[in-house]
Amino acid sequence: MDKTTDLSYKKILIITGGYIKEGLLESLIRKEKYSFVIAADKGLVSANRINLKPDYIIGDFDSVPPKLLSEYKAKAIPVETFPKMKDKTDTHIALEIALGYNPSFIDIVGATGSRMDHTISNIELLMNALNQDVNVRILDENNCIYLKNKNFIIKKSEQYGDFISLLAFSNQVNGLKLVGFKYPLNCVTLTKGSSLGVSNELLEEEGRVYFEEGILAVIEARD
Amino acid sequence: MDKTTDLSYKKILIITGGYIKEGLLESLIRKEKYSFVIAADKGLVSANRINLKPDYIIGDFDSVPPKLLSEYKAKAIPVETFPKMKDKTDTHIALEIALGYNPSFIDIVGATGSRMDHTISNIELLMNALNQDVNVRILDENNCIYLKNKNFIIKKSEQYGDFISLLAFSNQVNGLKLVGFKYPLNCVTLTKGSSLGVSNELLEEEGRVYFEEGILAVIEARD
Repeated sequence: MDKTTDLSYKKILIITGGYIKEGLLESLIRKEKYSFVIAADKGLVSANRINLKPDYIIGDFDSVPPKLLSEYKAKAIPVETFPKMKDKTDTHIALEIALGYNPSFIDIVGATGSRMDHTISNIELLMNALNQDVNVRILDENNCIYLKNKNFIIKKSEQYGDFISLLAFSNQVNGLKLVGFKYPLNCVTLTKGSSLGVSNELLEEEGRVYFEEGILAVIEARD
Repeated sequence: MDKTTDLSYKKILIITGGYIKEGLLESLIRKEKYSFVIAADKGLVSANRINLKPDYIIGDFDSVPPKLLSEYKAKAIPVETFPKMKDKTDTHIALEIALGYNPSFIDIVGATGSRMDHTISNIELLMNALNQDVNVRILDENNCIYLKNKNFIIKKSEQYGDFISLLAFSNQVNGLKLVGFKYPLNCVTLTKGSSLGVSNELLEEEGRVYFEEGILAVIEARD
C-alpha cells in the first residue's frame, strides 16, 4: 500500500515552525508511533535537530536554511514549495494536506510560541478538523489543546497534566455539565469572557463533559 | 480627588501572574504613565522585582510568598484576598475591578505564558471590556492583543511590531475590508479556521480596517 495515498486509521504528526522544547518531539514520536510526518517550513529545522526524516515537507521556506532544504530534497522526500504571498499559513496548508489523507488522528507540535497571532490562528485552524470529524491535538511541553463539539470523556490515566480547562470557543456553549471533576457544573451556559472553566481538575478516574450546543476549547495543562 | 474612586480618563495597568520579560514592565510604565496599577496574584512578584508599589493588590495568593504579601500589606496598600475555589481567575477579578473604575484605557501584562489555558482565557476576558466599550490591550514582549467590534485605524508610528494579524474572534466577521495594508482585502467574510488574516503588514502610514459585523482579534506582533 502506498503510504502517501492511504493513511486511513493512521496517525499523522505535523511539525510546524513555533517553539518546540527539547525532548518533546522525541518522546512524542516514541509514544505515538506516527505513521506519517509532515514538516511545515521551520518545523523542518526541528525535525532535523533529532535526525527525523519527514514523509512530506511543505512551506514557503522563508525561515529554513537553503542548505538544509537541499539536503532533505536529496533524500527523495516530497517537497512542496508555496509562495510567501499566500492566503494560508504554512500550518494551515499542512493541516489541509493531513486532513486530505482522512487519518484517524493528527498531532501538531510547534504550533505555539512567542508569536501569539500564529498560536491563536493555529488553534482556530482546529475548526477545519472538527468540521471533518478528525481529532487533532496541538501539543507543547505544557499544553494539549483540542476542540470538541459533542460530549466526551477525559481519563485520568491518559491526562496530559494536572489541570483541565474548558473555554467557550464558539460564542456560547449551552447546557454544560461536568461529572467527575473537582469543580462540577450542572447545566451552565459558558460564554466567551467567562473564566469559570479554567483550571479544573479530575477527582475521579474519568471526567465526563456533557453539553447541548456549541464548541469547547479544551486545554489539558501542566505548570 | 480620591485616586481610588475616580479614574475616569485614566490609564490602568494590570500586572498578572504569567511570564513578564525583563524590562517590559519598566519600559511600559515609563511610556504609558499609568495612573493606577493593580497587581493580581503572582503579578505582585513581578511588580516587586522592579520595586513598583501597586495601588491595589488582589488574588488568592496561592503563588505569592506570604512574606512578600505581608511586606506590601505593611505599606498600607489595599489587599483583597479571594478564596482559591472561585468562579473567576485572578485576572478576571482584576479586570472587573479595573472596569468598575470606568477608565479610558487598560493594559494587561503577565497575561500570556506557558499555560495556554490562562493565555486563551485572558484573551477571552477582553470581551467583558468590549461590552463596556473600554479599550484593553494584552501586552507581552512580542504581542499587543486587543478586540474590535467596529472599524478602526492602526498608525504605523504607533505600531507594536512589523506584523498585524486579524483573526475572527466571533464565529464570523462579515464585510472585512483592509486599506493601506500589504495584503488588502475587499468585502471578505473571515471565519474561524481561516488563516487569511495572519501576518499582514502596513504599507501606508495608516491601515484602515472596515467590517460590517462580528468581532476581530487583532494582534500586532514582532518576531
